[in-house]
Formats: sequence, structure tokens, C-alpha cells
Amino acid sequence: MKNQSSDFKVENLEISFQRMRNAYSTVIKCQDIIVAAKDEMEIYTKICKILVDEGPYKLAWIGSIGNDSEKKVIPVAEAGFKKGYLSSINISWGDNVYGQGPTGRAIRECREYLMKDIMKGTDYLPWREKAKEFGYRSSIALPIESEGDIIGALNVYSNSKDAFKNEEVELFHRLTKNIAQGIYVLRLKKEREQAQKAHYEILLKTIDAFVLAIEKRDPYTAGHQKRVTKLAVAIAKKLGLSEERIEGLRLGALIHDIGKIYVPGEILNRPGEITKPEFDLIKLHSEIGQEIISGIDFPWDIKKMIIQHHERLDGSGYPNGLMKEEIIIEAKIIAVSDVVEAISSHRPYRPALGIKAALDEIKLGRGKYYDPEIVDFCVELFENENFQWEVL
Amino acid sequence: MKNQSSDFKVENLEISFQRMRNAYSTVIKCQDIIVAAKDEMEIYTKICKILVDEGPYKLAWIGSIGNDSEKKVIPVAEAGFKKGYLSSINISWGDNVYGQGPTGRAIRECREYLMKDIMKGTDYLPWREKAKEFGYRSSIALPIESEGDIIGALNVYSNSKDAFKNEEVELFHRLTKNIAQGIYVLRLKKEREQAQKAHYEILLKTIDAFVLAIEKRDPYTAGHQKRVTKLAVAIAKKLGLSEERIEGLRLGALIHDIGKIYVPGEILNRPGEITKPEFDLIKLHSEIGQEIISGIDFPWDIKKMIIQHHERLDGSGYPNGLMKEEIIIEAKIIAVSDVVEAISSHRPYRPALGIKAALDEIKLGRGKYYDPEIVDFCVELFENENFQWEVL
Repeated sequence: MKNQSSDFKVENLEISFQRMRNAYSTVIKCQDIIVAAKDEMEIYTKICKILVDEGPYKLAWIGSIGNDSEKKVIPVAEAGFKKGYLSSINISWGDNVYGQGPTGRAIRECREYLMKDIMKGTDYLPWREKAKEFGYRSSIALPIESEGDIIGALNVYSNSKDAFKNEEVELFHRLTKNIAQGIYVLRLKKEREQAQKAHYEILLKTIDAFVLAIEKRDPYTAGHQKRVTKLAVAIAKKLGLSEERIEGLRLGALIHDIGKIYVPGEILNRPGEITKPEFDLIKLHSEIGQEIISGIDFPWDIKKMIIQHHERLDGSGYPNGLMKEEIIIEAKIIAVSDVVEAISSHRPYRPALGIKAALDEIKLGRGKYYDPEIVDFCVELFENENFQWEVL
Repeated sequence: MKNQSSDFKVENLEISFQRMRNAYSTVIKCQDIIVAAKDEMEIYTKICKILVDEGPYKLAWIGSIGNDSEKKVIPVAEAGFKKGYLSSINISWGDNVYGQGPTGRAIRECREYLMKDIMKGTDYLPWREKAKEFGYRSSIALPIESEGDIIGALNVYSNSKDAFKNEEVELFHRLTKNIAQGIYVLRLKKEREQAQKAHYEILLKTIDAFVLAIEKRDPYTAGHQKRVTKLAVAIAKKLGLSEERIEGLRLGALIHDIGKIYVPGEILNRPGEITKPEFDLIKLHSEIGQEIISGIDFPWDIKKMIIQHHERLDGSGYPNGLMKEEIIIEAKIIAVSDVVEAISSHRPYRPALGIKAALDEIKLGRGKYYDPEIVDFCVELFENENFQWEVL
């Protein structure tokens, strides 16, 4: 007798042990899937599939809650041996006739809901015939709660009654927690990406707004900035600057003369020679430009591009008389592009001198005022590659 | 004999079952702690504590990898029955004498490293005496890998040799995965918050940059905008607008005249009467202002605040002759504040008319041009509450 009882105990223990192992291994598998999932649907579909493939279950599905007036539960994923149950029934999470089953109650009451025998009681009445047809006898539904909101429910069906024991219930609780956490992480990721993208967008839009503001105030300067930008970007490409840096240069060049907003239009655009005090006033524009945008935290050094674009290699530039390596490469590129555009274009106080005069000027200043490599690439663009300002 | 063997089997099964249960329950507890943790240190310290409190272990600690030249492993959390082991030893993840123990190897080779008997072999030599003193006999170290980078290692010590069986090793693997995921989620959260904050910051800074640009161009308009802002915000508070909306109103008011950048300074600030064509030109400023910032996606309707601030309740305003409810409340507030500031202040073409004249104007236009409630609150501010422009 003792022997028999012992064997019986071994058998029981072995079964419990096996159940425990299975439950544990299913949770582990699900967790790995959840962590690796790229989107919410991947979580939902793979979890349902695992439950049916590896557990003794006939159907697993996940419903998300609809915000329509009928408060429908919308199946978003399912796995099972026989298709068609879900598409043939109505389930609601509202307190109506279709909301008295396990799914509706689990969502509404925010707790697990066990249907030990689908064939008994009245709650399951609306779906009983269909469930019988598909061979379901018991079921469990658990809410999926993410950051305080119920986003749906996990539903599992068995063909035997009272199939969900403590281990399984615990397993399913763990599973819905893991699903919720997985969904949360995916949403967090998405929000992070969106916020990062929005941050970048707003920087571009801010530059655009400044370009537009200058355009409104002083279309000549706006056009000048655009042409300088096109040339500067072309030179930067030849220099082999990274795409990221070229983007920064593009934005810096587009507003390099923003400080001219300070210079009265009468001085800026007046025909005739400029007087010394007038020129001193104009020269303030690189500092003032830098000051205007100084509060904005760009991921490029746009401040330096603006304040240094009139510096010269030999220290003869302004405002700080910086020399050679003290000037950032972007400012050196804008400097050359600026001079070439200014000389070759029409100015209010003189007609255009043409591109030849412009290139002569930078060739003359090559190495003294202007970075030799930048000058060479700039000359090459015009003389050999038929560079044109207009397209921008 | 059979009986005895059966009992033995039961005992063995019960022990295995218990181990399994314990391992599982520890993983579950740790997972819940990780999901609920507010920061990385909370994860590290609580996990170490659980392992020592609930497992048969003498010491658990987590080391993060230092990026110094010595490649030190820096203990960031520990739990154990006896303090002082970690502070008395050096551990490195570099390939040097302090990097041959389980921790260094686990990190360097990115795999679990079992030290079955600390008293044997040469790898543990640098720490053997100390370990003996503290009663450690075997240990395991596992790398913590988050998003492809090893960020540290989990280390657990037992006082018996060969203490880490398959179940434990599996448990610890699960645990380090969970820790890594938890750390990832916390970093993700932080990055999302930072990106959201940065997005908001950049909007404020953009407004500041525009305020500064106007300041440089036209200090009169800049001062006007600041004073209008102060009054508008005071009125909005009396109206009971939400803090969020008041913040938007503040920003909109600060740049409501940004479009004046388009109006030549000679017209804007010239003494003497304004001609009809000049006035028509000035009137374009609300549309142009809106156009300048139209690309920027503010979370408030700053565009409408700008374009509507010269609209009047009876449809007599510009540019669109909007009426009553067609005008947003923020624009109505700016309208009243704008009129009061303009009349009461000095203007290039006339001396200040004083606050009484300004209040008479809005009282006269109350209900016809200006929202009656806004007028009443504005009058109240000046007549009963001694409102002052200056502080802003």
C-alpha cells in the first residue's frame, strides 16, 4: 500500500513538475518573443501561436478595445485549430448582453475571468452554440493593462471543462504583464523616435522661418544667402565633408547674414560708396547674427559659421581677427562662397562684376585670406564643372 | 528496496521541484521589481538584495564597466552577509592579472563564467585569500548586455563549491536579460523625456531668437511686444485660462508684430501722419507675421494669434474681417492689450497719450470692437490693481 501511494505520489509530483516546467518554459519563450518584437502585431500573433502550439489549448486570441459606442472588442490576433469562431460572434466590453462573457467582464472589471464550464450558467449564452460547434468547453480571459489603461484582453479556450488550474492562471497573469510591458516599450520607442524627429524638424523649420523673415525684409540678402548656400554645399561635397556636416553647413549658410536685420535698409541697399562709419556698422552683422540665434541649441556649430564668415586666414578679418586653424572649415567655405557671390552679382551700389572678377579675387587671396583647397575646388566648380547659382 | 528507492525518488523530485519553484519565483519577483523601478540603481540594488535574501547565496553584486585605461569593473550595487569584500579587491575587465577572474572574463568574452571552486586553479589567485576570509567557495559571473553593448556583470557567490546547477545558471541568464531590458526601458524613457523637453525648449528658444531679431531691427516694436505680453498674460489669468494656454498666449504676444520686419523702418518709425498707402502697407504685417512662422509646428495656435490680432468683433478689423466667435480668445486679448499699449505709450509720430486715453478707447469700443469681458478685466487691472508695464 505504501509502495503504491509512493508511486502515485511520484506520478503526481512528476505531472506537477512537468506542468510547472511547461508553464515556465512558455513564459520564457513568450518573454523572448516580446522583447524581440518589432511591432505590436508581432507580439499579439506570436503569443497566440505559442499558446496553441505548445499548450493544451484550442484557441487563443487577443482583443483590443474599440472606442465606438457599442464598445466592441476587436480581435487583433488569433491562433487555433479551427478558424471561424471569432468572425462569427459579437463581443463587447460594455455592460450589455454581449459584454457578460469572460472577455467583456475581464476588461470591464479589470481582473481575470474564468469560465469553468461554457455549457453552464447564463453568462455565456450568446456564444454557447458556436462554442459547442467549435469544441470549446472552458475559457479564461485576462485584461492587458498598460500604464494604467486597459488596452485589450488575452483569451484562451480549452476543450475540457475546468482546464485552467492555478499554475496556468499564474502563467497567464505573467504573460499579460509581459505583453503589456512589451507594448509599452514599443510605444516608448516610437514616441522617442517621434520626439527626436520633431526636434530635428523644428530646427529646420526655425531656419526656414528666419530665411522667410529675411526674405520679407530684404530680398536681396535672402537671394544672396541662397546662392552662397548652393556654392558652399558644392564645395563641401568636393572636400568630402560628411553628409551630417554638410547639412549643418547648408543651414548655417542659409542664415549667415541674419545679423543684417540690424543694418538699416537705407545703408544696406543704398547706391553709391559706403562711408567708413557705415561700413563699421555693417561689420557688426556677423556678431549680431550669432547673438540672435545664440539661444538655439543646434546640433551643428552654426553660431561659429555665422560669426566667423568674415574672418581671414591671415587674421585680417573681423570681428575677432582669427587666424588659420582658429576658423572652422564651414566658416572658411562660407567666406569663399560669400566673396564669389558678392563680386559676381549685381549690388545696389554697382552692377555685377561677373564671375571672372570674383574668381580672380579668390585666386589672389588664395592662402593669404582664403583656404587654398577651398579656393581650388571653387575655381574648379566654375571653370571645369559649369557651376550655376540658379537652381536653388 | 523498491519502496526505499521510490521514497528516494520522491525526495529527489521534491527537491528539484522546490528548486524549480524557487528559481521561478525569484525570476518573477525580480521581473516585477525591474518593471517597477524608477532608476537603474534601484534595479541593481534590489536584485542583489533579493538574490541574497531569498537564495542560498552569500554575496551578489553588480559591476559596471569603467572606461578608464585600467578597464576597472566598478561595483555599483551589492548585497551580502558580510561587507567589505568588494572594497578590498581590484577587478578589471581588461586582459590583465585582475581580469582573469569570472567577472573580467564574463565581460570580455561575453558569456557566463563559472568558478566551481575558488580554491583551485590559478585564475582566482588575486582574490583567493580574501574570498577564503569571507567564506566564498564558488561563484558565477554573467555579462549584462543591453542593445548590443555590455554594460556590466552580475556576480553571485556561494559558500559551497560547485553550487551553481543548470537551473540556477538558467535563472541567472534570464535575470541578466531582464536587467538589461529594464535598463533599456529606463534609458528609453529618459531619452523620450529629453527629446520632448528639447522639443519644447527649442520652440521657446525660437521665439526668443525672433524677439531678439526684432529687438536688433526695431527696439520700439520689441518693447511694445513685451509690454503687450505682460498685459495680455495678466488679462488671461483673470479670465481663468489654463496655464498651458497662457504660455501659448505669452509666446504669441511676444512675436505678434513679427511681420513688421517687412515694413520699412522709414515708414514704421517716421514722425508725422501716415498716408493711406503707407497704412495699407503696415496692415500687411499680421499676414506676413503668420507667414513667417507658418512652417513651425507650435503646440499652440500662434499663427491665429498673429494673423487675428487686428480683427474686431464687428468685422471691421483686418485682414479677414472676422467676427465675434471667428476670432480666437488669445487674439482678442492681444487686440485689447495692443490698443492699450499703443495709445498709452510714446510713438515716433506723437507723444504718449497716457493710460486714461487708452482705457477710454477700449471702453468706447467695448462689445463693438473688443470683447467686453476682456475690456472689463483690462480696465480693472489698471484702475483697481495698479497694473504696471515695466517689470517684464
